[in-house]
Amino acid sequence: MSTYHAFTEAEAIAYARRMPDLFAPDSELTSREIGDGNLNLVFHISEPATGKSIILKQALPYAKVVGESWPLTLDRARIESETLMIQESLCPDLVPHVFAYEKDLALTVMQDLSDHVIMRKGLIEGNRYPLFAQHIARFLANTLFYTSDLGMNQQEKKERVKQFINPELCKITEDLIFDDPYRDADTNNVPAAIRDAVETIWNDRELHLEVAILRNGFLTHAEALLHGDLHTGSIFIKEDSTKVIDPEFAYYGPMGFDIGAVFANLLLNYAAQEGWSRDEQARADYRGYLLGTIKEIWSLFHGEFRSLWSLYGVDRVQQSESYQDWYMQRLLRDTIGYAGCKMVRRVHGLAQVADINQLQDEAAKERAQRLALQIGTSLIKHHRHAQSIDELLDIAIQAVK
Amino acid sequence: MSTYHAFTEAEAIAYARRMPDLFAPDSELTSREIGDGNLNLVFHISEPATGKSIILKQALPYAKVVGESWPLTLDRARIESETLMIQESLCPDLVPHVFAYEKDLALTVMQDLSDHVIMRKGLIEGNRYPLFAQHIARFLANTLFYTSDLGMNQQEKKERVKQFINPELCKITEDLIFDDPYRDADTNNVPAAIRDAVETIWNDRELHLEVAILRNGFLTHAEALLHGDLHTGSIFIKEDSTKVIDPEFAYYGPMGFDIGAVFANLLLNYAAQEGWSRDEQARADYRGYLLGTIKEIWSLFHGEFRSLWSLYGVDRVQQSESYQDWYMQRLLRDTIGYAGCKMVRRVHGLAQVADINQLQDEAAKERAQRLALQIGTSLIKHHRHAQSIDELLDIAIQAVK
Repeated sequence: MSTYHAFTEAEAIAYARRMPDLFAPDSELTSREIGDGNLNLVFHISEPATGKSIILKQALPYAKVVGESWPLTLDRARIESETLMIQESLCPDLVPHVFAYEKDLALTVMQDLSDHVIMRKGLIEGNRYPLFAQHIARFLANTLFYTSDLGMNQQEKKERVKQFINPELCKITEDLIFDDPYRDADTNNVPAAIRDAVETIWNDRELHLEVAILRNGFLTHAEALLHGDLHTGSIFIKEDSTKVIDPEFAYYGPMGFDIGAVFANLLLNYAAQEGWSRDEQARADYRGYLLGTIKEIWSLFHGEFRSLWSLYGVDRVQQSESYQDWYMQRLLRDTIGYAGCKMVRRVHGLAQVADINQLQDEAAKERAQRLALQIGTSLIKHHRHAQSIDELLDIAIQAVK
Repeated sequence: MSTYHAFTEAEAIAYARRMPDLFAPDSELTSREIGDGNLNLVFHISEPATGKSIILKQALPYAKVVGESWPLTLDRARIESETLMIQESLCPDLVPHVFAYEKDLALTVMQDLSDHVIMRKGLIEGNRYPLFAQHIARFLANTLFYTSDLGMNQQEKKERVKQFINPELCKITEDLIFDDPYRDADTNNVPAAIRDAVETIWNDRELHLEVAILRNGFLTHAEALLHGDLHTGSIFIKEDSTKVIDPEFAYYGPMGFDIGAVFANLLLNYAAQEGWSRDEQARADYRGYLLGTIKEIWSLFHGEFRSLWSLYGVDRVQQSESYQDWYMQRLLRDTIGYAGCKMVRRVHGLAQVADINQLQDEAAKERAQRLALQIGTSLIKHHRHAQSIDELLDIAIQAVK
């Protein structure tokens, strides 16, 4: 009965009805499959009589992207549910609650967040989320600090590294973020209008060196349990609530990779402002909001992370101020570098972003793509020299001048 | 029958007699327990009639150091035997052959190397080993390259990281090498004569920062399958043969830690020359031999590692010359830093070295200890700025001027 097979809606309902404490055994339930069908089935199960609802998320044994299909481990459902449970223990209000995980079915039963919207969509609609910076800074500070050698027992951390070895999902990142965009790979989707800029990237050896260095960090620096795919499509949001979802790519990696992912996706929207039909002033205002959010996230993250470190650091050797200064500077540099990598791959790599791709005006879309490449490559090239988050902001500001 | 219990000599003989292809079932065997009894039982089993012999090494469930005893995982026998088998596949002549490993007994049956001597002893006796540099350079180049993201499938490497998670043994290193020597810890054995120099180390914040940075690398940089304890007591040697033994501390860590361990132990002998009863010229000659060996090891290692990389590198992104230059410079810096850490802990930490401790002349012993601390701390402080192996040699040369 619990041998793996992809659920039908009827099976999803039957399964949900058996969940104790959620629904009565005879309850009337409805199901709607709301996944995109590329990686997972996502059943929205609700009980109209009470208004109660939950999500059943089931991993599929393959991935479909642009028509291609390849096998993909079901173990990612375990990684995702176990990561969510650790994250919930650290910041309960910032991730969906997991009611149950069933290994054999690669199935996770979790809190329904239908009252939230995907943040990427919210940003495309021009919304502002004044609490987002403090929410995501708290998420990053707590999940990165408390899963690292700074904030947890260092022997238990090694067992966590083992628990979250995630070769197949890491491979996707290693190829699609750190390799394919920098060569003429089959997986790329190069927009014809910007082919010249993309070819410049393929031939830029200075850039390739910096990307190789960042990829080395991704391959070897087991610093903290990362979300691993923290773009604005992995964030559910509404005015007073932020929920980080979908940590299938979780593994022990460099902290800057998660922080950089957030900044990159805010900057991709910043670039996409070229094409949204607002007047100049509205565009400048929204860009100011996006950059202000980045600055606020870094500042709050930095403050909270160091405060956790001072109060709850487990390691005498790492408690000195000079070491913390060194560590935070290195983290800033990683963050800026990974932010750049996360931008570039979204312009001409396999998986692109709606912020830019939805633009109707072709000339504006081209400007947005060039802008994203310019900011992304500048961040990558500058990353090892960075001293302050203001340098990231300056790169973005100079690029639209 | 195979439930864990410490073997008697009779049991060791009975076990050996059952090994197929080694001894006949009715063979006359003798056993001699030659371990130091602190961590492992080591039975030397021989058949006088044929001259055949083997080693049975059995891990004990505790460690004894200076009278203290604490529990220690038997899993280290698995780590050791699996590491030896990987190393043998990469450089068959440089490690003992493993005939069998039996998990439940924490028992490894391996090649007898009684015709070799422990290298530390050989150096103390003033011997020279002209083939050592090329042997150990080949060992380092092959074991580090082929277990890293440079030389093996990067997804399989992640499974290897998992296989060699080694929390208990790493904890010993994290404490005894990177923590205790830099504070007034109970585990230290501070020689009274050099207490002033040791206290200077306890108060040197610049030094502490560099040690914390190196410890961070040990905790998080999963670059290659290290031996993890590669001092001259872990090397069996004779004129034409070098065998690296005892990789119980193996885990995925920074490559420079293994290379640095070799250099540190040659430099400890260099410092100990203060007290060996040779004339000035003989002392200077032997020191020249030791430094020449370090230079030759680095040069051969560097050449062989890069040559393997160019020929057998698995990773397009990491094949560029500028990246390889960056990587090798970083590796040199790590090597110099870890060499310094490995020296300092051997002067006033828990586990010291016979090279210095056997010195009879108290004044000479004190000079040797001060010299080792001076070289070690200079290497640590300089490590992030190093450009060439000559800087390590200069630090050693200046220290005896």
